[in-house]
Amino acid sequence: MKNNLLIAQSGGPTSAINATLSGILKLASISDKVDNIYGAKNGIKGVLNEKLIELNELKKNINNLNKLSFTPGAALGSCRYKLKNINNSHNDYKKIIDVFTKYDISYFIYIGGNDSMDTVMKLNQYCKKNNINTIKIIGAPKTIDNDLKEIDHTPGFGSAAKYIATTFAELERDISVYESNSVTIVEVMGRNAGWLTAASALSRINGNNGPSLIYLCENVFDENKFIKDVKEKLKTKKSIIIAISEGLKTKDEKYLSFKNETNKISDVFGHVYVAGAGKYLEQLVEKEIGCKVRSIELNLMQRCSMHIASATDIKESSMIGMKAIQMALEGNTGQMASLKRVNDNDYKVEYTSVPIEKVANKERKVPREWITENYIKDDLLNYLFPLIQGEIDITYNKGIPSQFIF
Amino acid sequence: MKNNLLIAQSGGPTSAINATLSGILKLASISDKVDNIYGAKNGIKGVLNEKLIELNELKKNINNLNKLSFTPGAALGSCRYKLKNINNSHNDYKKIIDVFTKYDISYFIYIGGNDSMDTVMKLNQYCKKNNINTIKIIGAPKTIDNDLKEIDHTPGFGSAAKYIATTFAELERDISVYESNSVTIVEVMGRNAGWLTAASALSRINGNNGPSLIYLCENVFDENKFIKDVKEKLKTKKSIIIAISEGLKTKDEKYLSFKNETNKISDVFGHVYVAGAGKYLEQLVEKEIGCKVRSIELNLMQRCSMHIASATDIKESSMIGMKAIQMALEGNTGQMASLKRVNDNDYKVEYTSVPIEKVANKERKVPREWITENYIKDDLLNYLFPLIQGEIDITYNKGIPSQFIF
Repeated sequence: MKNNLLIAQSGGPTSAINATLSGILKLASISDKVDNIYGAKNGIKGVLNEKLIELNELKKNINNLNKLSFTPGAALGSCRYKLKNINNSHNDYKKIIDVFTKYDISYFIYIGGNDSMDTVMKLNQYCKKNNINTIKIIGAPKTIDNDLKEIDHTPGFGSAAKYIATTFAELERDISVYESNSVTIVEVMGRNAGWLTAASALSRINGNNGPSLIYLCENVFDENKFIKDVKEKLKTKKSIIIAISEGLKTKDEKYLSFKNETNKISDVFGHVYVAGAGKYLEQLVEKEIGCKVRSIELNLMQRCSMHIASATDIKESSMIGMKAIQMALEGNTGQMASLKRVNDNDYKVEYTSVPIEKVANKERKVPREWITENYIKDDLLNYLFPLIQGEIDITYNKGIPSQFIF
Repeated sequence: MKNNLLIAQSGGPTSAINATLSGILKLASISDKVDNIYGAKNGIKGVLNEKLIELNELKKNINNLNKLSFTPGAALGSCRYKLKNINNSHNDYKKIIDVFTKYDISYFIYIGGNDSMDTVMKLNQYCKKNNINTIKIIGAPKTIDNDLKEIDHTPGFGSAAKYIATTFAELERDISVYESNSVTIVEVMGRNAGWLTAASALSRINGNNGPSLIYLCENVFDENKFIKDVKEKLKTKKSIIIAISEGLKTKDEKYLSFKNETNKISDVFGHVYVAGAGKYLEQLVEKEIGCKVRSIELNLMQRCSMHIASATDIKESSMIGMKAIQMALEGNTGQMASLKRVNDNDYKVEYTSVPIEKVANKERKVPREWITENYIKDDLLNYLFPLIQGEIDITYNKGIPSQFIF
């Protein structure tokens, strides 16, 4: 019998998820314990539909592996598919285990966010319950949202944060050129956790001031207070930038964005698509203050702008992949690869692991003590700064970053 | 009497306008014909309000000059101020000439787009009419829109085009990860000229396909045809990207964006703020096709993303600045510094000049023969490619690009 490895990616794409895949492939290529390597197309759905592709050739090509680590998206494709509770439905599980058996899969690494860790947890529970112990199932974390528990910060977050910090610094130069009063509202991703919005404050160097006001979704949003804050800031500064989380909610627990959006799409995990808060606030400022106002949505660019990725993030994402496969090779299952910050002053991390139950379906928000109602504190800045350090050595072809595409 | 130089910047900020300023300062620093250098704050308004700052220190500091060329925005500030016809009002002109006289200004360089060239033209006409020949007035072109006449391409355009090409390549990786049908509509700046929208097609390398459909504002936009095009493309490709100009108009000459926007702000030149076409088309696709659809506005990022600027553009922008001051030093007035492409195959340019009347208030659109109704032809791609080549050697401080700020 062979000992084969299966890898899949799931959830929203990031700049770093392919670096994790690349890390897994690099370590697998030097281990005697791995025979063939497969990738499932579109996450767990690729396993269910038996859409596997061979990755044996890729693992040997170091040039392509490097190019892969610098390619945004999710090279194996992604999905948002939720496995039912193991007590309710056995069909999916049976099908998955059949495919694992057919392809001699001994190791399954699932790269994704907290929804994907739910899949890892349930698969592991199913195996345990049915005494299947030939397959080691490990989660490799990724999410730009930085909202996973039991990890200092998530792979993918640092690159998104570096894009956001850089973009706010550049926007500040742009909006500062005119003499008249102006308000620029920048909407940043984050439904329930404001980590990315907080990263806007990292632009506060090189002579820039950073956003004048920062509203995280951890706080209840009050429109009257907001208008008061904006008026106050405009007294001392002609052009101000405001950072807001897309997931801002008013005290009745309603998303601000729903006030001007009619379409409320939700995915299979029940998450709703909440963009639009910036546009709503733009109209509010126009009505209540009447100065020049613009709203900007950083949109998908914040999760795919590989060309301004954080070298720290890409390196760690690759290491997290290595840690995940290493754990599987050492006989562990039902775990997520993780990282701990071991030194605050001279930033250093250590790669660890946690039982998957401690992560799946849980969310980590920005701690209360690190924020005020319309800004963030220095402790949070100190936490964030190391994560955006370093620039990746990208290769350009005809003026555009090279990518690896299957 | 001294021979002093006055520089001002005007119009929308770009990634390249400070490189032009830097080029002027570099050449001025080595000329015996220039005594003091002043910058007017916020364009011609700074002259009218006698808000001048000394730039003598800056010109000597080569480190700061380099940092300045890599800083987006407009270091001297900008304005959108239109001088009245010289026959209608003498107040502004008298005030400007008084300030020039008071500060011994022999050379005035105005960096800007076609509206700014209007200022250069009128000032020159006023001087001519009143026999003022002690002041040499020269325009230095910049605009991300690439819509100036009598120049192969405008400083600032190449960097915006590189940002757009890179962003489309990254977005394509991002939206390709899911299995379901999806339409992503990306709105690019350009009211009357679709040059920037066309640059999206530059992403068609490295294995990417580039946008499936490209709608420039040079064509009349037909909603029914658009929906037909989209349905057709979705038959052969699950996820498609569409590039559109913000200035799309229907056959009744109305901006598409006005169909869903109530606020129609216009500036002093009578230009209206037209963003919103993408949002309108998003809703149209949702209604008529019903698949997953998202619209993205590249917004201010396309004109200030210095971190992905084109080295070719930044170098040429600096050279255009040098050409402008050189022309003034050689006794010319009422001219715009320009550039000509002298070799198509092995891209080379030559720095030239044109009478300002040939440029002011004129617009250059994308030639008909280079486009189809929903795409662009290879000739246009060949014209565009050289302009995005090369990456600038930016310095990062604490993970964020260094900027020069007064």
